[in-house]
Amino acid sequence: MNGKYRALWVREEDNFVEVIDQTKLPFVYETVVLKTADDAIVAIKDMIVRGAGVIGNIGAFGVYLAAKENANIEEIVKKSQEIRESRPTAVNLMWAVDLMLEELLNCEGDLVEFALKKAIQICDEDSNRSRKIAELGCDVFEEIMKEKGKTSINVLTHCNAGWLAIVDDGSALAPIYEAKRRGLDIHVYVDETRPRNQGANLTSWELSDSDVNHTIIPDNTGGYLMQQGLVDVCIVGADRVSANGDVANKIGTYLKALAAKYSDIPFYVAIPEGTLDMEIENGVRDIPIEMRSADEVKYMRGLAQNGEVVEILVTPKDAKAVNYGFDVTPHELVTGLITEKGVCKANTEAIREMFS
Amino acid sequence: MNGKYRALWVREEDNFVEVIDQTKLPFVYETVVLKTADDAIVAIKDMIVRGAGVIGNIGAFGVYLAAKENANIEEIVKKSQEIRESRPTAVNLMWAVDLMLEELLNCEGDLVEFALKKAIQICDEDSNRSRKIAELGCDVFEEIMKEKGKTSINVLTHCNAGWLAIVDDGSALAPIYEAKRRGLDIHVYVDETRPRNQGANLTSWELSDSDVNHTIIPDNTGGYLMQQGLVDVCIVGADRVSANGDVANKIGTYLKALAAKYSDIPFYVAIPEGTLDMEIENGVRDIPIEMRSADEVKYMRGLAQNGEVVEILVTPKDAKAVNYGFDVTPHELVTGLITEKGVCKANTEAIREMFS
Repeated sequence: MNGKYRALWVREEDNFVEVIDQTKLPFVYETVVLKTADDAIVAIKDMIVRGAGVIGNIGAFGVYLAAKENANIEEIVKKSQEIRESRPTAVNLMWAVDLMLEELLNCEGDLVEFALKKAIQICDEDSNRSRKIAELGCDVFEEIMKEKGKTSINVLTHCNAGWLAIVDDGSALAPIYEAKRRGLDIHVYVDETRPRNQGANLTSWELSDSDVNHTIIPDNTGGYLMQQGLVDVCIVGADRVSANGDVANKIGTYLKALAAKYSDIPFYVAIPEGTLDMEIENGVRDIPIEMRSADEVKYMRGLAQNGEVVEILVTPKDAKAVNYGFDVTPHELVTGLITEKGVCKANTEAIREMFS
Repeated sequence: MNGKYRALWVREEDNFVEVIDQTKLPFVYETVVLKTADDAIVAIKDMIVRGAGVIGNIGAFGVYLAAKENANIEEIVKKSQEIRESRPTAVNLMWAVDLMLEELLNCEGDLVEFALKKAIQICDEDSNRSRKIAELGCDVFEEIMKEKGKTSINVLTHCNAGWLAIVDDGSALAPIYEAKRRGLDIHVYVDETRPRNQGANLTSWELSDSDVNHTIIPDNTGGYLMQQGLVDVCIVGADRVSANGDVANKIGTYLKALAAKYSDIPFYVAIPEGTLDMEIENGVRDIPIEMRSADEVKYMRGLAQNGEVVEILVTPKDAKAVNYGFDVTPHELVTGLITEKGVCKANTEAIREMFS
């Protein structure tokens, strides 16, 4: 449902693209209308939209908006390159823009109409993949419960990989929503996810909305919980997975994977095929890591006592801070990749076999 | 120097105890005067003072204030029990209160005068131990630089174990201050340290004050930095170390120890002997972990644009959150304990040998 279980949609009245402003959640629900390719670029850069899939979707719709503005295909290609480079780590963005351009260059009919149709199609395909991941991931949960002889399951997740990140169910959160549909007794530990707090702000908001029992924890807490046997499985999404199964995801994912390994807790990564980057053999070595503004570390957004959403400084004013957006979890720490094609081991052979 | 390099001191005019209000730093420098044992309890519980050593010191001065209020030794003992239980994880508190009581029960002169002298003595001894830890720890830094053939060193620390935590140099920060005194080229990565942000608020403030080059990072970032070879050594303090070398420290310490181990980076814990709890054989199993209010996770303090210090809500209003204050790092992840008596391995035999 637009704006309810989808982070973006096309407005019927003018065919512009409308998105939920994810920088304002959970305190304010507001939407933003993207009318130009530049609007799409700003939305991606400023993280009005974020999440691997939705960034790709907005990339595709950005190409559509570029076509809407320019009859000239060279101009469209040029603007699309800008969109493609608006964030460096998420591979879905590059994949979606490239796919759009390839199709447009071969298109003989109305470019704008064709681009719109294609972008919507990419979105709908994401939705189908997400539903498949939901089912396969939830099967994994049920197996874990069976093996442990438990009637309930505790899941830990980092950042937000729900429907705000990938239409319609997300990736990491998709099996959780499916568990809810199947009536499983599920509880989710939600990493706050500094900086930008996508866990505390977005995942918690999503889960509340779907009435999924959950608890927000500081990013520091997961190791202790796993050591004490309070977590049955970790599941995260990814922004890019290399051919050998290394996983680029929100900074801090790696630390949770280490803790899971040390306490022998399964650590799954849920991704649609588009998140795989077969061009990169060794992710730890070669996936580019985006550095973002130090202000995202130094300032924090929240609700003041008077009900206003404000930003406050949470460090000494002149302090230096550094903000790596992602880290890369080596594949040997990953129990498996949950994809729309099945669950596979995170290594070169298994990935090649499933996706060749 | 009182209030400059000491977190607490005795006021000459009235012999009350004055402390820096650590809940207000780095935005506001304010002191609080403790006039009664109850004031000391509130200061400890509300974390106006925190840090293993300083909690112990305020415990000792709390017994002194109890003696100042009560001529009756039974009343003093009763109040001291309350002080002793004001925070459950830091062992220095119990140690200091027990020591004070033992001495008071054997004292034949003026109780108040004696208690004051004894509490000051505990503080001064902490200061001596801290200076020794500074030297031995800095020797460790120099060895690491030599081994690596480097002319500079990158240190990562978690939480605050500086002079706000242990007089006069701290524990984990003591070798860093010593490095500065020796003219080493040192840079410190400071974990923000959620919740309560002691890294961003206190360690950064301390290091700025002493002109030590440092960078604040989200707690999620350290794993990536270590994986990329950007950290040469980790050093943290502790609230309690068990007889087998397991380390209770601010929540999140364990995750950094895991990352250090995985990247083969030395992970040191700097502690005065008082932090050792020889009564607990297995720390991971038996050190009690304090649970604090969920509001410390849900609300964040900082400086508003109008210059006021405010608290804002950073999660959905009705979200559930959980707040474990500490975690326990298993001894096998610890490279060594840096103590005033020397550097020793974190295992039962080595600890017994050094401290028997």
